[in-house]
Amino acid sequence: MPADDDTDPTASDRPTNTDEDEFTVTPYDIEGDVDYEKLLDRFGADRLTDEQAARFPDHPLVRRRIYYAGRDVDQFLDAAERGTTHSIVTGVGPSGPLHLGHVMPFYLAKRIQDETGARVYIPLSDDEKYLLKDQSVEEIRGHTRDNLRDLLAVGFDPERTRILVDTLDADVVYPTAVRMAKRITQSTVDAVYGEPPNVGLSFYPAVQAAHLLLPQLVHGRHPTLVPVAIDQDPHVRVARDVAAKEDFDVEKPGALLGKFLPSLAGPGKMSSSDDAPGIELTDDPEDARETIVQHAYSGGRADVDAHREHGGDPEVDVAYQLLYYFLEPDDEAVERLAGEYRHGELLSGELKQYAAETVGEFLRAHQERRNALGPLAEELAPFRLTGDERAALQPSLGE
Amino acid sequence: MPADDDTDPTASDRPTNTDEDEFTVTPYDIEGDVDYEKLLDRFGADRLTDEQAARFPDHPLVRRRIYYAGRDVDQFLDAAERGTTHSIVTGVGPSGPLHLGHVMPFYLAKRIQDETGARVYIPLSDDEKYLLKDQSVEEIRGHTRDNLRDLLAVGFDPERTRILVDTLDADVVYPTAVRMAKRITQSTVDAVYGEPPNVGLSFYPAVQAAHLLLPQLVHGRHPTLVPVAIDQDPHVRVARDVAAKEDFDVEKPGALLGKFLPSLAGPGKMSSSDDAPGIELTDDPEDARETIVQHAYSGGRADVDAHREHGGDPEVDVAYQLLYYFLEPDDEAVERLAGEYRHGELLSGELKQYAAETVGEFLRAHQERRNALGPLAEELAPFRLTGDERAALQPSLGE
Repeated sequence: MPADDDTDPTASDRPTNTDEDEFTVTPYDIEGDVDYEKLLDRFGADRLTDEQAARFPDHPLVRRRIYYAGRDVDQFLDAAERGTTHSIVTGVGPSGPLHLGHVMPFYLAKRIQDETGARVYIPLSDDEKYLLKDQSVEEIRGHTRDNLRDLLAVGFDPERTRILVDTLDADVVYPTAVRMAKRITQSTVDAVYGEPPNVGLSFYPAVQAAHLLLPQLVHGRHPTLVPVAIDQDPHVRVARDVAAKEDFDVEKPGALLGKFLPSLAGPGKMSSSDDAPGIELTDDPEDARETIVQHAYSGGRADVDAHREHGGDPEVDVAYQLLYYFLEPDDEAVERLAGEYRHGELLSGELKQYAAETVGEFLRAHQERRNALGPLAEELAPFRLTGDERAALQPSLGE
Repeated sequence: MPADDDTDPTASDRPTNTDEDEFTVTPYDIEGDVDYEKLLDRFGADRLTDEQAARFPDHPLVRRRIYYAGRDVDQFLDAAERGTTHSIVTGVGPSGPLHLGHVMPFYLAKRIQDETGARVYIPLSDDEKYLLKDQSVEEIRGHTRDNLRDLLAVGFDPERTRILVDTLDADVVYPTAVRMAKRITQSTVDAVYGEPPNVGLSFYPAVQAAHLLLPQLVHGRHPTLVPVAIDQDPHVRVARDVAAKEDFDVEKPGALLGKFLPSLAGPGKMSSSDDAPGIELTDDPEDARETIVQHAYSGGRADVDAHREHGGDPEVDVAYQLLYYFLEPDDEAVERLAGEYRHGELLSGELKQYAAETVGEFLRAHQERRNALGPLAEELAPFRLTGDERAALQPSLGE
């Protein structure tokens, strides 16, 4: 159990700066230790109540309050209970392989869809990523193909799920975004996102607003829920502002706001683009296990004796957090792990092995579904907007 | 001849502010008396040489230097003479009926196409007009339909002409504009156009740049000429800057820069949106004649005796200018009219009658072609981008 002795390469990485106010969260930047409670005040969102959480289809991400806050959640839950139209919008920016943190909302959305029949809209913002990253159109297209296969592997119901790619579905995305753009000033964008590096990113918040209103523009006015990591909340707020303008017959999209899956290097957001190793959905399960054992930031003590005596801290232990976030659905199991870890009965290395096995199993199952897919265009076809749905978004020229 | 006596309603409107530096020209604003020479210095474009003008297919708009300046005109003319691919891009913003000034470049483009086989690309920026005007999507769509019929009435060769509507052809316009947008900063847009009122107009210069590079992106690198009123030159300059970036295999689009057809109220640009009455392509020819006789700003003297003695000034006489710009193709005829007017032999009322007849005839001929058109979608079909052309602009998802 090398991770628990003096040479544990992760134990010394623990951050020492604990000033809770020193953090920045925007859609393009997260810095410092995030205080999720303060963030709610800052963003003006509501903490999820126990009653609200209980009304969701049971899922560890909600039960354990990884999704811990929201906006207009009741409207969505009411429609789900009434059996009237209700939608979930949750997207992907295809700039690299998807990692574990990226798929959490998709597996949650599938769980809700299975239980309540929710419509799920999944926009891929290849435009935004091209505009933001130093990558070519072809590179972004490659990541888009790759991410699409992961989304298809989740197993959504094609009758009730629509997957869009901004440039591939530009026939409806752009005209819809133009309608939004008329209501969004440059100064709003500057204030919410910071000054954009190019005019494509000036416009992108209008595209994002279009994404969030698409289900209502296609199927008529109804509650929409947007499960996102809380750093993406500004996009939701801009869309809510646009929705409130008189000429759209839509409700403000609601939000279900989540914490960041910590990166292996410790607390913070697991990003596909930073330097810390991450667990990607395309990783070989064996390699992923190895990565966790070697790199997962540990909440254990510097040596076995100290650990046995004082116990470890599951709150900062990334192996534990991976299990807690959603990989170990059994509440008793995670509580037992936390208890044993705190009391020094479970060693860091043992916890990492447990997490590594669980991640390996998750990846194996996901990849099995992914590998069973046929040609991409063929698999994607039943998930694309139909002609009628497109017609609802794009007024025709007429005769 | 009521327009020539003391009650001439237009004679007193002559502007008195002649300070040549007090004028503003941007794509969204023209103020003051435009000095076309100074504008060339300001914009850094080149005056059209006699040799260049002579190399164009003969047309009064070039012969008389209504199009009086340009950028990279030689490259276009070389390709036209060699018989290699060369394109013209000239668009419309559909926010109202087209007026006489709007169709000048289209009739010029048709003349060039007939003679040299030039490809002609005509983008309709319904997105820009929606973003700029207090009009609904449906109103803009109505103007788009109407403008399209006027464009189809010009009689372009469907084999060599492509007509696009930004929102209708968003499948290729948006992805192409995104590529452009990555190279355009918000500060460039602010400097060139002034601060945009919404993020749609922040993005629009990227759409415009896409328009101007489309022929090369579809047919490969070749010279392109953009005949525009000089107030639209900033769009060309932005597109030229973008074209110079390394990852586009295109030449900088060239420009043929024109003067503004004066409004009936006198010198300045004939706009579809200002208050002065204008001649619209959909006007009843009789009404148009009446409008000219009643409202065309006169270069004549306040009464007949003074006119007979001192003569009139064709340079500011709108009736004369309409003939000179392009309605009277016969050079001898316009020179004779100008001479007789200067010498007081031709009265203002007579000149107006002549212009009114000519405008009436032009409208009658144009409207005859327009009325002969079948259903719009059917007539437009052969002018829309083909599947192969779209594929060149929109990398597919692949298998």
